[in-house]
Amino acid sequence: MKHLLIVLSIFSGTCAFSQDNKDSLVIRSIFDEALQNGHAYEDLRSLCKDIGARISGSAQAEMAVEWGKRKMEGYGFDKITLQPVMVPHWERGTKEVAWMQTKSGDLVPLDILALGGSTGTNGTLHGEIIEFKHLDDLKKAAKKDVEGKIVFLNQPMDPKQISTFGAYGGCYAIRGEGAIESARLGAIAVVIRSLAMPADNHPHTGSMHYEEGVSKIPAGALSTNAANALSEALQYGKTTFIMEMDCRDFPDAPSFNVMGEITGSGSPDEIITIGGHLDSWDTGEGAHDDGAGIVHCMEALRILKMLKIRPKHTIRVVFFMNEENGNRGGIGYASWTKEKQEKQIAAVESDRGGFSPRGFECDGSAAQLEMIRKFETLLNPYGLYHFEKGYGGVDIGPLKKQYEGIPLYGFVPDSQRYFDFHHAPSDVFENVNKRELELGCGSMAAFIYLLDKGL
Amino acid sequence: MKHLLIVLSIFSGTCAFSQDNKDSLVIRSIFDEALQNGHAYEDLRSLCKDIGARISGSAQAEMAVEWGKRKMEGYGFDKITLQPVMVPHWERGTKEVAWMQTKSGDLVPLDILALGGSTGTNGTLHGEIIEFKHLDDLKKAAKKDVEGKIVFLNQPMDPKQISTFGAYGGCYAIRGEGAIESARLGAIAVVIRSLAMPADNHPHTGSMHYEEGVSKIPAGALSTNAANALSEALQYGKTTFIMEMDCRDFPDAPSFNVMGEITGSGSPDEIITIGGHLDSWDTGEGAHDDGAGIVHCMEALRILKMLKIRPKHTIRVVFFMNEENGNRGGIGYASWTKEKQEKQIAAVESDRGGFSPRGFECDGSAAQLEMIRKFETLLNPYGLYHFEKGYGGVDIGPLKKQYEGIPLYGFVPDSQRYFDFHHAPSDVFENVNKRELELGCGSMAAFIYLLDKGL
Repeated sequence: MKHLLIVLSIFSGTCAFSQDNKDSLVIRSIFDEALQNGHAYEDLRSLCKDIGARISGSAQAEMAVEWGKRKMEGYGFDKITLQPVMVPHWERGTKEVAWMQTKSGDLVPLDILALGGSTGTNGTLHGEIIEFKHLDDLKKAAKKDVEGKIVFLNQPMDPKQISTFGAYGGCYAIRGEGAIESARLGAIAVVIRSLAMPADNHPHTGSMHYEEGVSKIPAGALSTNAANALSEALQYGKTTFIMEMDCRDFPDAPSFNVMGEITGSGSPDEIITIGGHLDSWDTGEGAHDDGAGIVHCMEALRILKMLKIRPKHTIRVVFFMNEENGNRGGIGYASWTKEKQEKQIAAVESDRGGFSPRGFECDGSAAQLEMIRKFETLLNPYGLYHFEKGYGGVDIGPLKKQYEGIPLYGFVPDSQRYFDFHHAPSDVFENVNKRELELGCGSMAAFIYLLDKGL
Repeated sequence: MKHLLIVLSIFSGTCAFSQDNKDSLVIRSIFDEALQNGHAYEDLRSLCKDIGARISGSAQAEMAVEWGKRKMEGYGFDKITLQPVMVPHWERGTKEVAWMQTKSGDLVPLDILALGGSTGTNGTLHGEIIEFKHLDDLKKAAKKDVEGKIVFLNQPMDPKQISTFGAYGGCYAIRGEGAIESARLGAIAVVIRSLAMPADNHPHTGSMHYEEGVSKIPAGALSTNAANALSEALQYGKTTFIMEMDCRDFPDAPSFNVMGEITGSGSPDEIITIGGHLDSWDTGEGAHDDGAGIVHCMEALRILKMLKIRPKHTIRVVFFMNEENGNRGGIGYASWTKEKQEKQIAAVESDRGGFSPRGFECDGSAAQLEMIRKFETLLNPYGLYHFEKGYGGVDIGPLKKQYEGIPLYGFVPDSQRYFDFHHAPSDVFENVNKRELELGCGSMAAFIYLLDKGL
């Protein structure tokens, strides 16, 4: 409570004192509720264990919609609404295997996951493998060297980046564009090094793209250990790669964004949207990505309600559907609100995991950043110090096109462990720490409380 | 590198610019080395897996001394020295079990660990159990209510504290003083709720004390789940507790502090001591407590050496022996340096786990704190923002008595997960994240670099 004391000593006897003092007490009560009576951890357990992985178009995704609706009803939120959206429906299928055949003839199995949206191999696919250490090297390669082969994009995340999201951004294109660039040069398939920080046996899936007019080749991700083993084998000579995946696309499926709110006491027509995404990849349990974000936002609203903190503006929590492979929920929500002529005045997203809070980033104007910088004094005692220009989130992104000048804010937890789990079988409930999750809920509730007052 | 750019724009063309710019580049190179070529993770693996738990007086503690010496030799540190210290020698023995007998007669096993320094039960010990929710309640109890019974101190850590060390401090006395206070009232044994945050099945050991003239009764720690189960059983009526522990004391044993240094280029006689403790409790692998601290400090010295950063003052890394149950290493080191008429000018300890860095605390004067506050601009890009008055560490504490006015600094990583593992079987290598550990090493090296320049 150091900062409270500083505030007390500076503003003693003034109006500013009273207000900052009141705010610091409200924020203290918010964190007390999150840490002492929090529902977030049990809610996350339920989402991860009662439902589990919930890729768009799956039965589990629909169960998650029902789960979200019932949770919001249980917490007594206002105007609980299911907003229909059509979503892509891709399934991994039942076969997913890879081997390398080394110079000595040995067949060595390698951990692989199809990338989301990939075509299958239509039976077993064999080919010589050719390694590139960077996507740019592939782009510069001659067609004759790649044609008929399987491309191996072994571009590691840069460990020197302090934010692991920076390192992720540097490698993102090998997953998103790898199949297109490989197919342009006549490759028959592509496998990438997982976008992951640690050396382990978990492949990390994620979305990939095809391009009109370029042939659609199968694309998979190898675990970092498997990528290292394959790279090492290639140093001893030509290596054959064998893979089988029977993933495939199905027609788009109906689904929903789930939303509930606390109606504003002063300007109920002005809406602050907060949210995360309800869908996950089809491996692991979507615990950090983005079960944590879902419960951060729902718990923030529950805490405000429980403490009878009545916001001026309407605070709406949205569980967006289909962030992972299409963002149909985010796009649909922005259009829907515009059609209804809603006044969206700000949006906040949590989609960077359930780790210890560090702060919030602002995708907005200098003044919109400056406003949240003023929160630091009040939030620093809870470990929040990072209030910088940056990114809001994928789901809330489309609001920018519909509402000129709307500020988007992204919750920033510690990033160091995120890419241990992201899109991998290891993204399970057990890898979320209760206190770290709860501190995120407190941070989200306190931020919304201050944002609502500031707007 | 935002802060570097700010520095560039403010000081452009001035001497201050050049210096701050140079410092920011040095610090960047320090973190690059820690994250890209770091030895810390492998060194910690080796300490945890090749040796494991290493309580004072054990064969493993002596293996750890040899391990430390060889590591320092391998890194080419100057003046590698083993400083002899006599240490307590307590052993857990081979039997450690507890049951509760509920009203229905059922015997329910409970997870228990003897507290370090406890006497054994000398066979099986039975008794009615009496619960206190706070040590103060025990102190106020009547002798007739406690006499002949087993005291159960079920005082939980306060989840509302943001720093878990604050919550630990609030409960510390039940472990340290519980046996004395219980024995004063005629209890035959005491069991405490583990000083741990999560609800799980790991009991957490730790040091406890006896007092001259008060009978020495056996003392154990129940896992938080076991404590909850016992507390619940007690709501249904009288409960018998049965325990057996054959832990015991042995005569003091010879051991060593291990030290090595980089000799100062300007004032080699002025020494900055950095360190952590080499001993651990005899459960788990002492990974966070304090293997992480050991490798933070050794790696910091290795990085400075590797980058040919020549400090003005001598930087000495000390692996202290016996922090956990006696602090003989810390006390011995302070006396030894004084006897040798050394000039100790500052000390830095890492003993709060291998988690993401948050900053450093200062046990010293306002000016000594102010000096490290100036480091914030340079260290904030690496996630360090907490530079506050606070605690140095147990091992370096005795230097204060020998050197008036010496500043002590404590490395502060994120505290949220520390009491999941502290003194428990779960404090193993697998629960340390590579990047979080490496960022701690970079932080320690950068802090020492700046401290050496500032002194």
